Amino acid sequence: MASVGHVTPQTLRFDAPLPLRSGATLPAYDLMVETYGTLNADKSNAVLVCHALNASHHVAGTYEGQDKSEGWWDNLVGPGKPLDTNRFFVIGVNNPGSCFGSTGPMHTNPATGTPWGADFPVMTVEDWVDAQARVLDRLGIQRLAAVLGGSLGGMQALSWTLRHPQRVGECVAVATAPNLSAQNIAFNEVARRAIITDPDFHGGHFYAHGVVPKRGLRVARMIGHITYLSDDSMEAKFGRSMREAELAYSTQDIEFQIESYLRYQGDKFSEYFDANTYLLITRALDYFDPAREHGGDLAAAFVPASDIRFTVVSFTTDWRFSPARSREIVKALVDNRIAVSYAEIDAPHGHDAFLLEDPRYHGVLRATFERIARGIAK
Amino acid sequence: MASVGHVTPQTLRFDAPLPLRSGATLPAYDLMVETYGTLNADKSNAVLVCHALNASHHVAGTYEGQDKSEGWWDNLVGPGKPLDTNRFFVIGVNNPGSCFGSTGPMHTNPATGTPWGADFPVMTVEDWVDAQARVLDRLGIQRLAAVLGGSLGGMQALSWTLRHPQRVGECVAVATAPNLSAQNIAFNEVARRAIITDPDFHGGHFYAHGVVPKRGLRVARMIGHITYLSDDSMEAKFGRSMREAELAYSTQDIEFQIESYLRYQGDKFSEYFDANTYLLITRALDYFDPAREHGGDLAAAFVPASDIRFTVVSFTTDWRFSPARSREIVKALVDNRIAVSYAEIDAPHGHDAFLLEDPRYHGVLRATFERIARGIAK
Repeated sequence: MASVGHVTPQTLRFDAPLPLRSGATLPAYDLMVETYGTLNADKSNAVLVCHALNASHHVAGTYEGQDKSEGWWDNLVGPGKPLDTNRFFVIGVNNPGSCFGSTGPMHTNPATGTPWGADFPVMTVEDWVDAQARVLDRLGIQRLAAVLGGSLGGMQALSWTLRHPQRVGECVAVATAPNLSAQNIAFNEVARRAIITDPDFHGGHFYAHGVVPKRGLRVARMIGHITYLSDDSMEAKFGRSMREAELAYSTQDIEFQIESYLRYQGDKFSEYFDANTYLLITRALDYFDPAREHGGDLAAAFVPASDIRFTVVSFTTDWRFSPARSREIVKALVDNRIAVSYAEIDAPHGHDAFLLEDPRYHGVLRATFERIARGIAK
Repeated sequence: MASVGHVTPQTLRFDAPLPLRSGATLPAYDLMVETYGTLNADKSNAVLVCHALNASHHVAGTYEGQDKSEGWWDNLVGPGKPLDTNRFFVIGVNNPGSCFGSTGPMHTNPATGTPWGADFPVMTVEDWVDAQARVLDRLGIQRLAAVLGGSLGGMQALSWTLRHPQRVGECVAVATAPNLSAQNIAFNEVARRAIITDPDFHGGHFYAHGVVPKRGLRVARMIGHITYLSDDSMEAKFGRSMREAELAYSTQDIEFQIESYLRYQGDKFSEYFDANTYLLITRALDYFDPAREHGGDLAAAFVPASDIRFTVVSFTTDWRFSPARSREIVKALVDNRIAVSYAEIDAPHGHDAFLLEDPRYHGVLRATFERIARGIAK
């Protein structure tokens, strides 16, 4: 299986303001987009891939001169891969509010001439879906063969089926949930407090001070990492392994390998991720709750999606978005007699499994996209 | 069932330095101690209660003029309660390094004349057990009818049976583990990083600066709280309840009740808990690992405890120290043909259950201490 090779992102400019769920609007904005494969003549082979917190439009391939720049879902998307770019035209869009090139908090607020910072409009999953729909309009694509996403990306995939059902053939929602649990929100809130109370946050306007709230970002990332990995995989990978043969008896130095790993992940993340983006994206996660406007009845929320076929995938050791949460989605679909395939993959890697190359998991997605491809060929 | 009523702590002074596992020694020190009930003539009815992170010598009763000052295990310890002070002489000791009156990081380092701060010697579970043994010496008690503890207190109870087996009749270890998992250490490490990277920490010598690293303590406590509660009990108690009927669409304001709860807990904790104590106690948790010096063989570690009777209790929804961890202890005991009763309590409250008044849980402890009392009466 080959890579899609070297890819080049494009910047799409949108002059029409985007109305947001909060009542605010996002003025003229840029979105970073990448595509892989070729759009067929009747524009029926497009698959949109929605990204999660720490990802972007750069789904597959590498950038010229940067060998280590593989896209975040490169193991899934490419010629001969489960989402086969010989058959599909795959689209990655960096959501507004993110920090990978699309308009976000670090860009200039036209009303003030200074960076948006904490004044960037609060974004929701629904707003991202609407922004992505405009990208399809721009590319001349009326209807997606499929929309695909994992985790927060899975929420966007689900939202597509509720918001623009006539534009979606199939929905593939991996390692996701119909909303966050109290515990999920709690972890987000701790991470946000770590960022907001970092003195270098400056109320979200740290750009003007030439600093970055790295302490908060580090802690936020460390918390995130714990929730992405299963207890068992952390135990298998690190256990109680010591950095040195003898204990140092220190409260501040590294004693255990797991500490070293977490500090490294935190440090790396704090070098590139935007603090305001972290707040925005975790809030979008908190807010997502399609059942809310139906009195908590998720089945009622899915009524508009009756003509779409769903594939829902969960991982046994994912304690962030457990299989039970995916089964809630499946039940709501079944209650509507909507076609749904459900795979609960016995994988040890926790939430992170959705990004990894598990053969059973990739087998399910390969079969799903082969079936979708046959439907297009007809 | 009555309370033990008004209680008065006593300060015990120890002039002989305490040799520590790290190789350092703790110079002359004070320990805060409370006792409840009456020591019988042959001094055979003493029960030592070991405390966890956010607790102290104040196990039961109230302080005169402070109605809300109930001890942390007041529901368990008192006249007619499961640990019945009409029959037992119950002892609570605040461990050195803690911040509730015993010598700790906020006290004066005799070598410098300034607060110990981060230079306070690193304490281990074994060091605390040795310090507690000296308290028994002072009280003229050669042998405990039982040693009891939950969580980190349970580790101390277990350590008693390995370190001073001839001084322990029974060991009651609740909601504990034979060591921390990688995930447990990871949560501790994030909390420590939040504290250490708070600019008000000043390398652990914040006392001299007239500040307290409250931001770090708040984040640490919020993380802790998430791990003390079960996912289900958090869901039952808070779910996705909003603070207001309408969303505010804000990344910084409180939207969900769970956020309000966590912030309140963090704020309250940061008002009284010492940051250096937090580091010390979480490190003691990390280090506890009796199997380590036996090549990881927990059964080999328990060989010295062969004449002690154990009661091990776990809670089904405790994901911090899950029932599987308690079963490791039980297996190691059974492998040694040591007498052990094991109760896995079906309780919804997660790790916190060990502090709550669950009837099945308290029933197990009541039956255990009634049996122990009968053994003393003989």
